[in-house]
Amino acid sequence: MRAWTISEPGGRDKLIQVDCPIPIPEKEELLIEVKAAGVNRTDVLTRQNRSLNEPYPILGVEISGVVVENKSEFPSILPGTRVAGLVNHGGYAEYVTIPADRVIVLPDSVSFIEGAGIPEVFLTAYQTLYWLGGLQRKETVLIHAGASGVGTAAIQLARHLSDATIFTTASRKEKLVQTKRLGADFSINYKEADFEEVIDRETGGYGVDVILDFIGASYWEKNLASAALDARWILIGTLGGSTVNYVSISSIMSKRLTLRGTLLTPRTDNYKAALTKEFEKKAFHLIKDRVIRPLIYSTVPFDEVPEAHRQMENNENTGKIIITLED
Amino acid sequence: MRAWTISEPGGRDKLIQVDCPIPIPEKEELLIEVKAAGVNRTDVLTRQNRSLNEPYPILGVEISGVVVENKSEFPSILPGTRVAGLVNHGGYAEYVTIPADRVIVLPDSVSFIEGAGIPEVFLTAYQTLYWLGGLQRKETVLIHAGASGVGTAAIQLARHLSDATIFTTASRKEKLVQTKRLGADFSINYKEADFEEVIDRETGGYGVDVILDFIGASYWEKNLASAALDARWILIGTLGGSTVNYVSISSIMSKRLTLRGTLLTPRTDNYKAALTKEFEKKAFHLIKDRVIRPLIYSTVPFDEVPEAHRQMENNENTGKIIITLED
Repeated sequence: MRAWTISEPGGRDKLIQVDCPIPIPEKEELLIEVKAAGVNRTDVLTRQNRSLNEPYPILGVEISGVVVENKSEFPSILPGTRVAGLVNHGGYAEYVTIPADRVIVLPDSVSFIEGAGIPEVFLTAYQTLYWLGGLQRKETVLIHAGASGVGTAAIQLARHLSDATIFTTASRKEKLVQTKRLGADFSINYKEADFEEVIDRETGGYGVDVILDFIGASYWEKNLASAALDARWILIGTLGGSTVNYVSISSIMSKRLTLRGTLLTPRTDNYKAALTKEFEKKAFHLIKDRVIRPLIYSTVPFDEVPEAHRQMENNENTGKIIITLED
Repeated sequence: MRAWTISEPGGRDKLIQVDCPIPIPEKEELLIEVKAAGVNRTDVLTRQNRSLNEPYPILGVEISGVVVENKSEFPSILPGTRVAGLVNHGGYAEYVTIPADRVIVLPDSVSFIEGAGIPEVFLTAYQTLYWLGGLQRKETVLIHAGASGVGTAAIQLARHLSDATIFTTASRKEKLVQTKRLGADFSINYKEADFEEVIDRETGGYGVDVILDFIGASYWEKNLASAALDARWILIGTLGGSTVNYVSISSIMSKRLTLRGTLLTPRTDNYKAALTKEFEKKAFHLIKDRVIRPLIYSTVPFDEVPEAHRQMENNENTGKIIITLED
């Protein structure tokens, strides 16, 4: 089968398409014929990771496709079933194996392209809003990078699962319009307004109960100022830098803040399975009924993976970049 | 009645004993004849707090004593009942009022002096270890300032409620001996050894699941190095400074840490009542049976409150400083 790996860690020129054997599913696993694969920032980081040794992995952590073989004890997942899910690696390939307890069965209303755009962003959004952030009904949430993959998913979940008051930040006009359309109450152009001032004014000084922080260092003080008493501040990205040069522990104590760092990809198989199961139960009906939907920015043919990475590294995308293997 | 307040915010010379009316209990409150009052760092901070306006409060947030009057719907708390509990202020006085749902009834095996040493340290230790830190049975915990009031309480709770592996730090020899005796597995003299190296060695590189951090800035990097994957790091004091000049968000993310700032005193009455109730149910039998006990450093007569503050400000104490009103 065809698959994408790297010749060595580095730039996009290190991406290589190789021919390798179709993987053999182990017990509890499915073999999937991949129809589409989501592109994620973690793929770029893996590509660049100089601590990796040979043999280098096949890239890609989320896919949609059709079940070819079922070695698990879930007899209902018959060959031919349309599914999507998170894999630990190996997504940029014609075939991949996946633990059976980690797939979402796709309804006919959801295409493979949309399906490949669901697992990473919606599971991350669900995990950060609910498992880590403990978002309660009618609470107030600040979602940075609202037009990003996880941002768009989080806005929709916070709107339709929690009836939250949603503040979001973005820069370009079309992103602001889009986040509004997805359900944000306040879409703030961070180049034109101080989001912490908007939050202070609109919440009457209360602040936000949950922050999804993809930005990190450059917004540290503004996020701190925006946090309500007992707020949960989820550290999920460092687009604005990782190093904060002034952190006041007293401020964290007096606001009784909870800060939580997280990465989804390195979580255990059991964690991902439990998260997938809860998401399917609590939220997937909204996708099935097309109340909420993955936002697709572009589809890139399988042979053009370097172009997909280029788009991601240039932050061009609003929504997901999807690699397609369909004919 | 006699009570201690301040002439104005400032040093110990601003402490003044005054004569004022006995407070009148409202609905759901008890009137207590105070027999002993615990001295806490928050009392010193209140004394120094220049944002306070007149009339200045009577100092003191924890007491033991005898019920004089009961205006609540708990008929079992008869006049004459021996109790201890947290008050919002007013503890350094001959009488104080307290919500009835916030007292612990003292068994005969516990003296008033010991009783006044229980609420703040044991409730704080219980809250930080369990409500905020989520300490599980057999997990590993690092308790800084192990010879402090909360430290000694936390060591005993972690030992007898959770069978945890306990690392603790202190400086002087007698403090190290004492923390060992209370149940710490490893009492580390932070002046002679790097605690993060001891933890790394003794846990085989795993680290600790929960950190009770009274120190703050000066131990930031060492605490980070000591934290296990998914650790909960509770920020509860800043004895080593509040300002951290280098914080790596990426490290917090890759270790998936939870950092929680907390202060007990400003919590709501309902929170304190619920915490008191759970502590009484889950842990108080250990105090009653004298398996665990509050550690009393000194008793200071009511007329000598400035001396009690002097001991606290000089960090002289191992365990609680108690003001006594008994004859």
